[in-house]
Amino acid sequence: MSELLIHDLAEVATPKGTSHRRGAAQGAVERLNGVDVVCRGGRIVFVGSPEERRRQLGELPGVPRLDGSGRCLVPGFVDCHTHLPWAGTREHEFSDRLAGKTYQEIAAAGGGILSTVRSTRAASEDELVANTRARLARMLEWGTTTAEVKSGYGLELEAELKQLRAARRAAADQPVEVVTTLLAAHEFPPEHRADAAAREAWVREICERITPAAAEHGLATFCDVFCERGVFEVDQARRVLEAGRRHGLVPRLHADEFADSGGAELAAELGAASADHVLAVSEAGVEAMARAGVAAVLLPGVSFFLRKPHYAPARRFVEAGVPVVLATDCNPGSSHTESLPMILWLGIFRLGLSIEESLTAVTLNAASVLGQGRRLGSLEVGKDADAVLLDGPNLDHLGYHFGVNPVVAVVKAGSVVHRRP
Amino acid sequence: MSELLIHDLAEVATPKGTSHRRGAAQGAVERLNGVDVVCRGGRIVFVGSPEERRRQLGELPGVPRLDGSGRCLVPGFVDCHTHLPWAGTREHEFSDRLAGKTYQEIAAAGGGILSTVRSTRAASEDELVANTRARLARMLEWGTTTAEVKSGYGLELEAELKQLRAARRAAADQPVEVVTTLLAAHEFPPEHRADAAAREAWVREICERITPAAAEHGLATFCDVFCERGVFEVDQARRVLEAGRRHGLVPRLHADEFADSGGAELAAELGAASADHVLAVSEAGVEAMARAGVAAVLLPGVSFFLRKPHYAPARRFVEAGVPVVLATDCNPGSSHTESLPMILWLGIFRLGLSIEESLTAVTLNAASVLGQGRRLGSLEVGKDADAVLLDGPNLDHLGYHFGVNPVVAVVKAGSVVHRRP
Repeated sequence: MSELLIHDLAEVATPKGTSHRRGAAQGAVERLNGVDVVCRGGRIVFVGSPEERRRQLGELPGVPRLDGSGRCLVPGFVDCHTHLPWAGTREHEFSDRLAGKTYQEIAAAGGGILSTVRSTRAASEDELVANTRARLARMLEWGTTTAEVKSGYGLELEAELKQLRAARRAAADQPVEVVTTLLAAHEFPPEHRADAAAREAWVREICERITPAAAEHGLATFCDVFCERGVFEVDQARRVLEAGRRHGLVPRLHADEFADSGGAELAAELGAASADHVLAVSEAGVEAMARAGVAAVLLPGVSFFLRKPHYAPARRFVEAGVPVVLATDCNPGSSHTESLPMILWLGIFRLGLSIEESLTAVTLNAASVLGQGRRLGSLEVGKDADAVLLDGPNLDHLGYHFGVNPVVAVVKAGSVVHRRP
Repeated sequence: MSELLIHDLAEVATPKGTSHRRGAAQGAVERLNGVDVVCRGGRIVFVGSPEERRRQLGELPGVPRLDGSGRCLVPGFVDCHTHLPWAGTREHEFSDRLAGKTYQEIAAAGGGILSTVRSTRAASEDELVANTRARLARMLEWGTTTAEVKSGYGLELEAELKQLRAARRAAADQPVEVVTTLLAAHEFPPEHRADAAAREAWVREICERITPAAAEHGLATFCDVFCERGVFEVDQARRVLEAGRRHGLVPRLHADEFADSGGAELAAELGAASADHVLAVSEAGVEAMARAGVAAVLLPGVSFFLRKPHYAPARRFVEAGVPVVLATDCNPGSSHTESLPMILWLGIFRLGLSIEESLTAVTLNAASVLGQGRRLGSLEVGKDADAVLLDGPNLDHLGYHFGVNPVVAVVKAGSVVHRRP
C-alpha cells in the first residue's frame, strides 16, 4: 500500500469538516505548526507532531518522503467551474473590447461563444482531448488537484457528447481528478436562433435528447444552464435542470451575470449545488441562496478579463451565510486562465476576501459544490491526501507573494505528482 | 564569437527606435511574420525572412539554434522600478489592511517601510545578496532581462551602501542585467523623525554624505526620492536630486502617489528620467511631464496589492504624449511580485492599455528610462539580443492567456539563459 510522509512543515493550513463552511466559518482555517502528515492508500492517516507520529507510527523507514523545508501545506485546490474542452482561440476580441465593444456586441457580430462553437464542432475528439490535457497539466502546475469540466461549445447532440467524452479521456493517465457537467444550455446554437419556436425546439432537444443521452452514457455528473435575460429565461432554465435531475444529474446554474434575472432564486428553488457568477444578484436572491444552502461560485477572472468595473458581492455573501467559492471559469472568451492562485489573488485584492476565506473558497467549499466534501477539500485524517506545498512559511504568503507561482509540489491521492523544477 | 539563430517563429513583435515612444507611437508595434533572428557577439545582426537570411548569411551550420516552434518573440522585459535588496517579510500587514487600516496607519504603528528598514539593517550583506539573487532568478523566469534595483531600506550611510553593494554582487554570474539607484530619500529614518530639525538633518546627511559616498564608490547610476506631502516635500526632494546630479547621478522621483504634491512638476523642472506612481498627478503635472519628455512609470501592482480603488491615469498620459512605462515596484510592503507579466495584465485589464502599448511599456520605454534605449528594448539590428519567446503564436496571447507564465525561453545578449522546464 502506497505511503508518503510529509515532514519539516512550518505550517499546515486547512479548513475543517465535510461540507460547506458558511459565514464566519468560511474564514475559520486551522493552522498547525510543526506537524507531520502521513498518507497511506491515498488517504491521510495522521496529522500531528513528529513525536506523536513516532509514537503512533514509528520511524517509517523506507516510506517515501516529501520534505516540507519549512514551508506551508494546504489542501489541493479544487476548480469547480471550467470549460476546458474547446478548440480555437479568440485573442482578436481583445482589441475590439479595448475599442469599447461589449461582450454582448462581440457575440452579436459572430464572435463570443458561437465563434468557439464553430471551431469546437470542427475539431476532432482527439484534438479536444489534447487541448484539455494540456490545460489540466497547467492547472496542476498551479496547484489544482480536482477540476470540474463542462461541455457547452458543441450545442448539438453529438458535439456535446464529444466534448464530454474528450473530458473523460483527457482525465485518464494524468493526476488531476475530473468531474463533468453537461452544459448544452450554454447558448442557443445557430440553428435555433430564428424565433421563439426555434429556441423552444432547442430547449426540448436538450431536455428530451441530449440530457438522456449524456446520462445514459454516464458522461456527466452535473447539469448546468446559462440563465440570463435574453439567453435561457428562468422557466426554460428550470425545465432544463428538472430534465437533468430526472436523469440523475445534479443541477447548477450560471445565474445573474449581467442582470438580475431571478437565477439565484431559481437555484434556491431547485436546491442547486451552486449559482455561479451572480454579479447582479438581488438581495432576495442572496437570502434565498442562504436559506437553501446554495453556494455562490464567484468567477472574478471574468470581470478582470472583460474589464468590467463590477465584481460579485463576495462580502455580502459571506455576511449572509452563503458558502463562497472561487473558480477560474477557464474558457477562451471571458477568462482564459488555468491559474486558481490568480483567481485567489482577485478574491483577496478585488473581492475583499481574507486569505483564510479565499483558501476555503478554493478547497473545501469548492469540493462541497462538487459533492465531494466528505472526501476532498481539507487536510484531515480520513480524507483523500490531496495537498499543495506552498512557497512560503505560512498561508499568508499565498496572498502576500502574488503574481508568481506559489506551488512547490503537489500531492494527489497520497502521491507526489508535481514538483517545481 | 557567440552566435544564435532563432528560427520557425510565427511572429516577431517589437516597438522600434532608440528612445521613448510617446502618444500614439506607444502602440505602434511592428509585427513581422515568419522571420528569423540571428545574433552575433551579443547583438542582433539580422531580422528577416529565412530566404533572405540564407542569401545574406548562408545556412549557418553549427550555429546554436532556438526553435521558435510557431511562437512569438518579443524584446526582453525591462523592469525599471524595484526595491530588491531587502530582508524580512510583512505578510501580517495583510489582515490589518483587510480590517480597514490604511498603508499610512500601518506605517504609523511601526509597520510599513520602517519595519523593513529594521530587518534590512540587521541583515548581513551576504543575506541581501542571496535574497536579491533569488528575486532576480524569479524575474528571469517571467521574462525580465534587465532590472533597476533601488536602495532605501538602509536609511543610514553604511546600510544604504550595503544594499547597493548587495545589488551589484547579486548581479554577478547570473543573466539579469542590473542598474542601481540610490534611494536614501525613501523615508525619514527613526533617528530623524523627532522634529523639523531632525528631518532637515537627514536631508543634509543624504546630500552631503550618502550621495557623495555612493557616487565615489560607483555604486549607483540614478538617484531617487519619495516626494510626497508628509514625506519629502518638493523643496527637500529638489535638494536631494540636485545633490545627486552634482555627483553624476540621474534624477528620478516617486511622485504624487497619495496626493498631488507637485512631484510631477518637479520631475519636469529637473528633466528627471521619470516620475513614478503618479496616481494623483494634476493636469498641470501631466502637461509639464509631456513638455519635458519625462516618462510616467506606472506601478499598478501597488493599487492592486493595497486594494486601492484608484489607478494611475494611464490613458491620459498616452493622450498627452507622455511615454508610459509599467514596472513591478517589487518590494515587501506594497507590491510583492517579481512578475512583469502580472503587471502587464494589470496594465491591460485595469489601466486600459492595449497589448501593443503595454509591450512598449515593459520594453523600449522602460529601457529609455534607464538610459539604455539605444542598446535595449527592441528587436532591431544593432541592439543587444535580449528577447523572450512567448507561449503563443502572436503578441495578443501575452494578454489573452493571463495568470500563467507566458515565458517559454529567455535570451540575454545572444545566449539562451532560461528555458521553461
